[in-house]
Amino acid sequence: MPYELYYWDGLQGRGEFIRLALEEAGADYVDVARSDDPGQGISAMMRILKSKSEPYPPFAPPFLKDGDLIISHVANILFYLGPKLNLAPEDEALRLIANGLQLTITDFIAEVHDTHHPIATTQYYEDQKEAAKLRSKDFIEHRMPKFLDYFERILHQKPDGSAHAVGRTLSYVDLSLFQIIEGLRYAFPRATANLAKDYPALQAVHDTVKHRDNIKAYLASDRRLDFNTSGIFRHYPELDQDA
Amino acid sequence: MPYELYYWDGLQGRGEFIRLALEEAGADYVDVARSDDPGQGISAMMRILKSKSEPYPPFAPPFLKDGDLIISHVANILFYLGPKLNLAPEDEALRLIANGLQLTITDFIAEVHDTHHPIATTQYYEDQKEAAKLRSKDFIEHRMPKFLDYFERILHQKPDGSAHAVGRTLSYVDLSLFQIIEGLRYAFPRATANLAKDYPALQAVHDTVKHRDNIKAYLASDRRLDFNTSGIFRHYPELDQDA
Repeated sequence: MPYELYYWDGLQGRGEFIRLALEEAGADYVDVARSDDPGQGISAMMRILKSKSEPYPPFAPPFLKDGDLIISHVANILFYLGPKLNLAPEDEALRLIANGLQLTITDFIAEVHDTHHPIATTQYYEDQKEAAKLRSKDFIEHRMPKFLDYFERILHQKPDGSAHAVGRTLSYVDLSLFQIIEGLRYAFPRATANLAKDYPALQAVHDTVKHRDNIKAYLASDRRLDFNTSGIFRHYPELDQDA
Repeated sequence: MPYELYYWDGLQGRGEFIRLALEEAGADYVDVARSDDPGQGISAMMRILKSKSEPYPPFAPPFLKDGDLIISHVANILFYLGPKLNLAPEDEALRLIANGLQLTITDFIAEVHDTHHPIATTQYYEDQKEAAKLRSKDFIEHRMPKFLDYFERILHQKPDGSAHAVGRTLSYVDLSLFQIIEGLRYAFPRATANLAKDYPALQAVHDTVKHRDNIKAYLASDRRLDFNTSGIFRHYPELDQDA
């Protein structure tokens, strides 16, 4: 039975971190909300979110359905899928490390989101643009470098080489770091102009992921949506500035 | 060897979710940054955060040290400690459900934090007060009820009774829900005036936790700091309003 991924159609968003893992592994999955098949599409996702019979319906997408089990939250889904997709370390302690790094990415993503929605997710960007400018300035000057410095430092400091974020093999954390670099470059081209020079190990992880056969095929397919101003990473030139 | 909890002194903050679990279980632990013992205190925490030899230093507190293993992030720490402290379900699938609920709490806590710091964590509240008023208004009108409605719904809908958030036994998720209710009541007394009436199952979970012997003893001890305006939950009357 294929995995069922539930996430909004029309944007990469948080669902993309799951897609990258499923695609890299060549896993059998259905992207339910994007599917035209009978009984699928957005309405199938809303049925689960609003269900009165599911024992533990999720708060929000993305969520994964594997048989009867419904798992919510990117880090939780990847923690579950990682070993099954051969994208997590063998070692139990390193799996907790991977989860900690993924949750650091989760925090970072929430801050990226709030650059364009610092006041209210229920309001349009245009109605909070002035606050968004202030928050984006702080993000570019303080928060983005703090997180990127951290990941670069981990890559250099970890005892088993800088090729991967955890241990010596590719994991879902590497895939998520790739997505972060891609997203930042789209949203903040000026602020990330020197990223490759300032963060060589992160750039190398990004490049490794980008050239994996399955990822390359995925990125070239129409399953990979373009970044756009509906997602987490949004390009509004007025929020960008030189680093 | 006792568990070592690392978190800032002087505030409950995110560390409190870990403390509640350790205290409920009567676990042997050291609250390192608050300890006056030689080699401990804040400087011991900073040594790990800035270490150039730790294989995977954490991004930020709280983190837990168990022997050589350092685990970061509240949800990850609780996922690790839960089974050891008898505060997680036996069933593997329910452990993933618990983790999903805890990550929903993590998201909620981040939004609570941003009610008083919507623009920049590096700036004082006073310098972002106008944005904070807007964000708090949206939080009270939209976000707080959305999250509380969700948890109340889960408690009613789950097949094994509303006494606990997951399964039929006390888990770390219940302890975290208790802390959320306590924190919201402190920060937003007007907005939460009808909480017990509107969220009876949540209120019941809160009360159950509050009257556990070990929690009662902890709350009465000087290990439990008062809420204050250094923590996640802050009481600024100008951010509160009737629900």
